[in-house]
Amino acid sequence: MGIRAAVAGASGYAGGEVLRILAGHPGFEIGALTAGSNAGTELRVHQPHLRSLGTRVLAETTPEVLDGHDVVFLGLPHGQSGPIAETLGKDVLVVDCGADYRLAEAADWEHFYGSPHAGTWPYGLPELPGQRDVLRTTRRIAVPGCYPTAVTLALFPAFAAGLAEPDDIVVVAASGTSGAGRSLKPHLLGSEVMGSVSAYGVGGTHRHTPEMIQNLSAVAGEPVTLSFTPTLAPMSRGILATCTAKIRPGVTTERLREAYQEAYAAEPFVGLLPEGQWPATSMTLGANSALVQAAIDERAGRLVVVAAIDNLTKGTGGGAVQSANLALGLPEELGLTTIGVSP
Amino acid sequence: MGIRAAVAGASGYAGGEVLRILAGHPGFEIGALTAGSNAGTELRVHQPHLRSLGTRVLAETTPEVLDGHDVVFLGLPHGQSGPIAETLGKDVLVVDCGADYRLAEAADWEHFYGSPHAGTWPYGLPELPGQRDVLRTTRRIAVPGCYPTAVTLALFPAFAAGLAEPDDIVVVAASGTSGAGRSLKPHLLGSEVMGSVSAYGVGGTHRHTPEMIQNLSAVAGEPVTLSFTPTLAPMSRGILATCTAKIRPGVTTERLREAYQEAYAAEPFVGLLPEGQWPATSMTLGANSALVQAAIDERAGRLVVVAAIDNLTKGTGGGAVQSANLALGLPEELGLTTIGVSP
Amino acid sequence: MGIRAAVAGASGYAGGEVLRILAGHPGFEIGALTAGSNAGTELRVHQPHLRSLGTRVLAETTPEVLDGHDVVFLGLPHGQSGPIAETLGKDVLVVDCGADYRLAEAADWEHFYGSPHAGTWPYGLPELPGQRDVLRTTRRIAVPGCYPTAVTLALFPAFAAGLAEPDDIVVVAASGTSGAGRSLKPHLLGSEVMGSVSAYGVGGTHRHTPEMIQNLSAVAGEPVTLSFTPTLAPMSRGILATCTAKIRPGVTTERLREAYQEAYAAEPFVGLLPEGQWPATSMTLGANSALVQAAIDERAGRLVVVAAIDNLTKGTGGGAVQSANLALGLPEELGLTTIGVSP
Amino acid sequence: MGIRAAVAGASGYAGGEVLRILAGHPGFEIGALTAGSNAGTELRVHQPHLRSLGTRVLAETTPEVLDGHDVVFLGLPHGQSGPIAETLGKDVLVVDCGADYRLAEAADWEHFYGSPHAGTWPYGLPELPGQRDVLRTTRRIAVPGCYPTAVTLALFPAFAAGLAEPDDIVVVAASGTSGAGRSLKPHLLGSEVMGSVSAYGVGGTHRHTPEMIQNLSAVAGEPVTLSFTPTLAPMSRGILATCTAKIRPGVTTERLREAYQEAYAAEPFVGLLPEGQWPATSMTLGANSALVQAAIDERAGRLVVVAAIDNLTKGTGGGAVQSANLALGLPEELGLTTIGVSP
Repeated sequence: MGIRAAVAGASGYAGGEVLRILAGHPGFEIGALTAGSNAGTELRVHQPHLRSLGTRVLAETTPEVLDGHDVVFLGLPHGQSGPIAETLGKDVLVVDCGADYRLAEAADWEHFYGSPHAGTWPYGLPELPGQRDVLRTTRRIAVPGCYPTAVTLALFPAFAAGLAEPDDIVVVAASGTSGAGRSLKPHLLGSEVMGSVSAYGVGGTHRHTPEMIQNLSAVAGEPVTLSFTPTLAPMSRGILATCTAKIRPGVTTERLREAYQEAYAAEPFVGLLPEGQWPATSMTLGANSALVQAAIDERAGRLVVVAAIDNLTKGTGGGAVQSANLALGLPEELGLTTIGVSP
Repeated sequence: MGIRAAVAGASGYAGGEVLRILAGHPGFEIGALTAGSNAGTELRVHQPHLRSLGTRVLAETTPEVLDGHDVVFLGLPHGQSGPIAETLGKDVLVVDCGADYRLAEAADWEHFYGSPHAGTWPYGLPELPGQRDVLRTTRRIAVPGCYPTAVTLALFPAFAAGLAEPDDIVVVAASGTSGAGRSLKPHLLGSEVMGSVSAYGVGGTHRHTPEMIQNLSAVAGEPVTLSFTPTLAPMSRGILATCTAKIRPGVTTERLREAYQEAYAAEPFVGLLPEGQWPATSMTLGANSALVQAAIDERAGRLVVVAAIDNLTKGTGGGAVQSANLALGLPEELGLTTIGVSP
Repeated sequence: MGIRAAVAGASGYAGGEVLRILAGHPGFEIGALTAGSNAGTELRVHQPHLRSLGTRVLAETTPEVLDGHDVVFLGLPHGQSGPIAETLGKDVLVVDCGADYRLAEAADWEHFYGSPHAGTWPYGLPELPGQRDVLRTTRRIAVPGCYPTAVTLALFPAFAAGLAEPDDIVVVAASGTSGAGRSLKPHLLGSEVMGSVSAYGVGGTHRHTPEMIQNLSAVAGEPVTLSFTPTLAPMSRGILATCTAKIRPGVTTERLREAYQEAYAAEPFVGLLPEGQWPATSMTLGANSALVQAAIDERAGRLVVVAAIDNLTKGTGGGAVQSANLALGLPEELGLTTIGVSP
Repeated sequence: MGIRAAVAGASGYAGGEVLRILAGHPGFEIGALTAGSNAGTELRVHQPHLRSLGTRVLAETTPEVLDGHDVVFLGLPHGQSGPIAETLGKDVLVVDCGADYRLAEAADWEHFYGSPHAGTWPYGLPELPGQRDVLRTTRRIAVPGCYPTAVTLALFPAFAAGLAEPDDIVVVAASGTSGAGRSLKPHLLGSEVMGSVSAYGVGGTHRHTPEMIQNLSAVAGEPVTLSFTPTLAPMSRGILATCTAKIRPGVTTERLREAYQEAYAAEPFVGLLPEGQWPATSMTLGANSALVQAAIDERAGRLVVVAAIDNLTKGTGGGAVQSANLALGLPEELGLTTIGVSP
């Protein structure tokens, strides 16, 4: 008998990706699938790619329906995880793909989300120093945001090794449209996004900004400042994050790459590309991989690290399952792949 | 110890897809990887998405290198499989992803390929009536072309059930660009294909035409005539085939869907969609699925069946492994999924 | 003083395209711009590409607002053109980009649209035999549907020359997503359409079907039967229509191309491509062009004609202005181009 | 009689775009069209979207062929403009779309291009302070690179107004694939670029870097340092440049936008978007527009300016014609539009 997993928000993109991974995972048995306005319909109406689960009927997202599972994955709109999580037993593993429990500072939450802070859960990024052990013993996991996943993996080794100045990080990232979820907004229509790259959330207003600052400040051991600009690219999946920071004196590209080599040598899901090869999001499509490459621009006095992930896999559903594996005592890699679907 | 598999043409799209599947397949051990002009380089230069195999060095495609494997997958340009296949032992399973051994008629081959016919091997489409048993005992498999896979699965149940006239089939199919392989031709550049659909191989000149006719004539029990027009769509993967044929008197949509229900009820990789849902190629991305839907246009006197596949998976590498599983006595579904990567 | 033009539905895709063309047209002065729920907002919120008109405020679509113009272009949802058109003076040129006045048979309208038939206006396809003269003297123009524009231009010369049988036409067409308008439907989201081709409106259920049959029956001089399948392709603009019909005995590709050469020799906006070149929608992006190529598949006994247009230009806004030019006594080509934006 | 213009490199993307604009320009008569390996073929083979010029035959790029024109537009690979330009008369206007004459410092050229420096011509960016007058009297114009066009227009007003620190500019830009020209390289194949964003030329190695530094240093009145990272996005056309610099004390978003308002109030081709609207490349498709928006991220201490252009239009062919208009005494806007093709 497998571990019994429920997925709340199964008709959305995050929930669908969790399900895609669970469907091929030998350790889980898929229990209740719930939805909001789509409750009462079959999964195949919304997720026709999930063939083996197609005739499952979506239930409403209630404590009763979610009761009786070993794990509950929450793929709900921001702000909705808190109320439902409070109803779940303490021995149930709850994995929140939303933002509700990511931030440590209530003030940050309130500033960016405008509602009361639900709390702070252990952060589901096992690659962060010491975090793997935290995750092994928790029953509550806050899955990182997709941008923070890419940016944190891109930059933390440089800060952990003391190679970069914390005071002027600049990040520009391109995301596929699935990062915005299945929201019916005009600017997300295919006619608008195809053939076009656009900027949004400029000037530090994107909600993922405080999460990146939180992660990198923790690693740097002092507060970092960070300018973050997200852009929307004409693809469904993928994030390419270009991350730059001021180098400390004497740091060479060799030293920089060495720091990444060390940081990621034992990591199953993060890879430093061979010299001369730079990440493309297609290398990670459908895979739980993060691929990075680093260089130093000596004239500019900056290091540049580029990271690619699939925002729905390593950036959401795959990251969720990776952390859940740890919390459940399963092999961390179980049911996850580093092999992308390409071309 | 797994079954030892070699892949010839590992730096191309067909070879890469075979490898993507083998890398997640519990029954195979990956042996020699070979290439043409890319011999001597590491796999990750060409297939950076295949992380776990990245540092494998590509060998030259010679009999010596391919010797000593239980299975050899050939992903070579048309016309090159014959010479190398002849050097491989009779007890070695040879799975040709190219066209060399697909056609029964030497005249067809010569007309469409302009070179001597290499021969005819058992056809790797287990869903065709009786074909599964043939594949269980063969050591030579001709993997179907990508278009013929989609079109044959779309139409054969109608012909098998005697619901359609054989004399005037019309097929128009859209393919992603990976169907053309990694060929450096101007019309395959991203700048040319993005934002554009174009026609090619019009008027019965596409090389996959005789293969479709061969398949459907066999099922119909009499020669069919078929007009085939392929088009190139702005996506990497996927085929959507719209297939129409004249209906026989009295055939209703219900009767038609019933025939497909019966034909595919026990098939692990082919699905008839629920009424009202029509195939999209994204439902099959990276999956070994073929999804079909059928309707009758009474005014026009035609049935219309639409099929979607991933041209590289069910249409090439996945189909190859499915047939190889059968020939090797493995479970047919081993290492293959029906779950697509979407959105 | 130019001719004063109003555009109703200026925040939609059809209205936006009419405006894009009018903005570069030397014969028109742009008057009232109206909208439905977007009334009261500036045009640049919805059509930021129309720089020179950006600060125009959208009015409500009322008879009073539209009064006092020489031409009124209607880019309204189907069924809404009738009521507003009735309020406009008989000497005002009304150009309806919607479907309301395209069909001659009330029964066809009611079957496909489920509402009372508004009437039938002169059909805005000047390339049809005799139609240019009709358009020169009318004050009411029904702009053809985008698919019917492509399909009619692809096939009518063959029927006009008696080269094809009328009884079994088969058409499969791929359209960009802008053909569906700016509608907030899940299947039109960028995340869903990118990387995917899908079928819809299969089995003769698409509303453009009777319009194609009407056009081709008129040219053939007898009722035609036609199977039409539309597909959605991952691009914003463009239609590629693959049109086949049974050839009459003795018709060769040379004879066929000759018929098209003759039909289109004097046409400013329709071009027969040189032998061996097949249409791609990118050749027509933003242009009022239709490009066709024709071949005969002798084995299949069918002619195949492929046509490419920009669904918003020749298929909507450009076609509208072309016909309006005629009705207003302006040079037919004024303000229109055959030069596409490519790559 | 129009001004007689020749286009060298007419089968490439830059040459094609110059021609697309010239074909709709009332002031020019199109003379010789030349090519390299494509000499002897008709233009429509390579540029089927340029309908009205389709049957023009491409000549070889020789002094004799280019002789006798009033203007010669060069769309040649880097390094090839110099030799041919030397053969052209001093009274002929030569407009180089290549890089050969853009850089003032021979050392920069040699470092980035590895060949002898051809020289320095007046820089074809009329929006730069004082540059319009320079262009009015020159016979030699170096058209800016596509990235430098976007980045310079995004940042120079901030430096001209003294609002930004010159010492740590960070720019990340996304470009469509046409920026790489029609080069047959594997990473430019549609199968590779669709659905993927990738980084390249990281660490200050992109050849456009010194050109940006040159422009911004001139405006700032002191040397700037700049980190530039280009990325490749899945679209044919368009550049979105995200440009950040450290703000000087006390600068507010209002002050910043004011500077842009002033800088661009009288500019026909550059627009500051209304507050809250951020650029998308689709707003500029096929148009000679640059659209910018600016904000201040106070926490990060940086201004962020985002600019969108069509890399082939304002970034190449449109910019070339704009400058040529000035040099020839024509109205600067003649034959150019700010209206994009969208959606």
